[in-house]
Amino acid sequence: MANYKIKLEQIKAFAFDVDGVLTDGTFQSTADGDLLRTFNAKDGFGLRTAINQGFPVAIITGGLSKSISNRFVPVGVKDEDLYQNSRNKIPDFEDFCTRYGLKPEEVAFMGDDIPDIPILKVCGLAVCPADAVPEVKAVCDYISAFPGGKGCVRDLVEQVLKIHGKWFYQTDAISG
Amino acid sequence: MANYKIKLEQIKAFAFDVDGVLTDGTFQSTADGDLLRTFNAKDGFGLRTAINQGFPVAIITGGLSKSISNRFVPVGVKDEDLYQNSRNKIPDFEDFCTRYGLKPEEVAFMGDDIPDIPILKVCGLAVCPADAVPEVKAVCDYISAFPGGKGCVRDLVEQVLKIHGKWFYQTDAISG
Amino acid sequence: MANYKIKLEQIKAFAFDVDGVLTDGTFQSTADGDLLRTFNAKDGFGLRTAINQGFPVAIITGGLSKSISNRFVPVGVKDEDLYQNSRNKIPDFEDFCTRYGLKPEEVAFMGDDIPDIPILKVCGLAVCPADAVPEVKAVCDYISAFPGGKGCVRDLVEQVLKIHGKWFYQTDAISG
Amino acid sequence: MANYKIKLEQIKAFAFDVDGVLTDGTFQSTADGDLLRTFNAKDGFGLRTAINQGFPVAIITGGLSKSISNRFVPVGVKDEDLYQNSRNKIPDFEDFCTRYGLKPEEVAFMGDDIPDIPILKVCGLAVCPADAVPEVKAVCDYISAFPGGKGCVRDLVEQVLKIHGKWFYQTDAISG
Repeated sequence: MANYKIKLEQIKAFAFDVDGVLTDGTFQSTADGDLLRTFNAKDGFGLRTAINQGFPVAIITGGLSKSISNRFVPVGVKDEDLYQNSRNKIPDFEDFCTRYGLKPEEVAFMGDDIPDIPILKVCGLAVCPADAVPEVKAVCDYISAFPGGKGCVRDLVEQVLKIHGKWFYQTDAISG
Repeated sequence: MANYKIKLEQIKAFAFDVDGVLTDGTFQSTADGDLLRTFNAKDGFGLRTAINQGFPVAIITGGLSKSISNRFVPVGVKDEDLYQNSRNKIPDFEDFCTRYGLKPEEVAFMGDDIPDIPILKVCGLAVCPADAVPEVKAVCDYISAFPGGKGCVRDLVEQVLKIHGKWFYQTDAISG
Repeated sequence: MANYKIKLEQIKAFAFDVDGVLTDGTFQSTADGDLLRTFNAKDGFGLRTAINQGFPVAIITGGLSKSISNRFVPVGVKDEDLYQNSRNKIPDFEDFCTRYGLKPEEVAFMGDDIPDIPILKVCGLAVCPADAVPEVKAVCDYISAFPGGKGCVRDLVEQVLKIHGKWFYQTDAISG
Repeated sequence: MANYKIKLEQIKAFAFDVDGVLTDGTFQSTADGDLLRTFNAKDGFGLRTAINQGFPVAIITGGLSKSISNRFVPVGVKDEDLYQNSRNKIPDFEDFCTRYGLKPEEVAFMGDDIPDIPILKVCGLAVCPADAVPEVKAVCDYISAFPGGKGCVRDLVEQVLKIHGKWFYQTDAISG
């Protein structure tokens, strides 16, 4: 646990899988071939706050849909930090680190399924939702109490920002 | 609790956040850039009844989508009482109060996340869903037993209308 | 309970509310003003079987959307038995009874909210989902263990068809 | 249980119902007459892995929608293995077996409702989701702990592939 707190303090950036992390793992298949995801406003507020506080955020997903960038670009994620159609996720993770001059141990990554394991093994803080597959849970530093799409991303962001003194401690501070 | 009942009696109008209150906090991202919300018929019946009984209803949301007005205008919410794209919500709340000649303590507000806290601190009855964030629960007069999108709005409306004798006490009264 | 069984035996037709009965009470608001419902395949199989076995089925809803008829007509519900935009539901229920020469006590009706109460009071078997509002539960003969959209319609249909010997007793009977 | 393990070892292919198995049994009805299903990424990863490991996969459904093939063809299911609009499912199951030279006892089938029973009675391993109807549970060799659309397909695929030594035993093996 002491180790976990030290890891939290080292984090300077975030990377997230999409399906099962920023969603509950489901998507609606449409007649024109798209898969539409359902996202969570509380996670979105967390991502926006992290970015505003200077933490780069990457999205690394095997999915490919305009509806994914339509969700995350307005929240503040940069186009070049959105890695879609990512089958082998490690090179994308490394590209993100390189572009921001980050060491892998300075990036927290959250994933829920087997393709996420390679990044989970090299990143600075390996996190998964409550309903990740057992193989993923086995390699994580922290398992959120929240399932995918139900606030697990917000949970991680809050913990990191709080330890850096960059979350909303004083609710008065956000008064209009 | 006596205090809570007195506050209920003072309420003459309602204001609501959307995501996490009138929805479960999720929305579907589409290929053309819209975020589509999923609403609850029981909440809608509550809003319609409140408006029919003379209680103005405001919607104050950071969201912006034709699909939001498409839901609430047919229920009876007036166009000018729909505040979308509201990042700093206090001025919109004050505008609503001013236009109806209401004191803030005559308006019940329900929100679920940090951007809702400023209004929750000044309104007459601060309410949140069962799954609001802890910072919001800490400043609320009443935490509904229902989560967002699952009837928390109906719960509040019923309580206020009942104390004013304007809910359906006699089911015979609604016979065809 | 004896009374309940007698009522089951008298039933010759079904009528259903939509929102909160054939759905979980939610609908997705779209950019073009439609409200899209999400239905359950198990309920659909129940309705199709009831109709095939000679039980007329009416849908009586305050909603109005092509997506409602698109769901129920393929299941076998006749266009004239689909009552949409029904604010005061009793005349629609009476029209259904008249057209089929049914007495109200020969029709089972399932509803979940206050506008359904007038029919629930005159029909032959008043039924509601597990998550109906308290006012509705108070006037029902039977409260399904299933919530709206999660199989409550199938539950009712099975009970009625079984007591008439028209459900699938012998699974061999449906072999290919 | 010994019997169950022997059956697992004999399986060389999979066949699946859609509604209530690869989905939670719900679909969204649209204005243009389509029914849109919501699928699970974890199930999809399981299907893709099974196909990559040489296990043919059939989809046999009473449904008919471009959105169904749009989901399963990219996962690796062949067009000719997608049986839609299948009212009497046995001939489709037999066609699948014939085309791949499979005996019925070499195919695992998962279904959740009465139309699935004929196949469940002849296939090599009869499986259903946790929320299948009682008539289906009664004829199954194995009832998954996961409900439809929540990972029951992944559960079955993993068990079969593991007993054949074709699942991901060594997470290192999937490193980038």
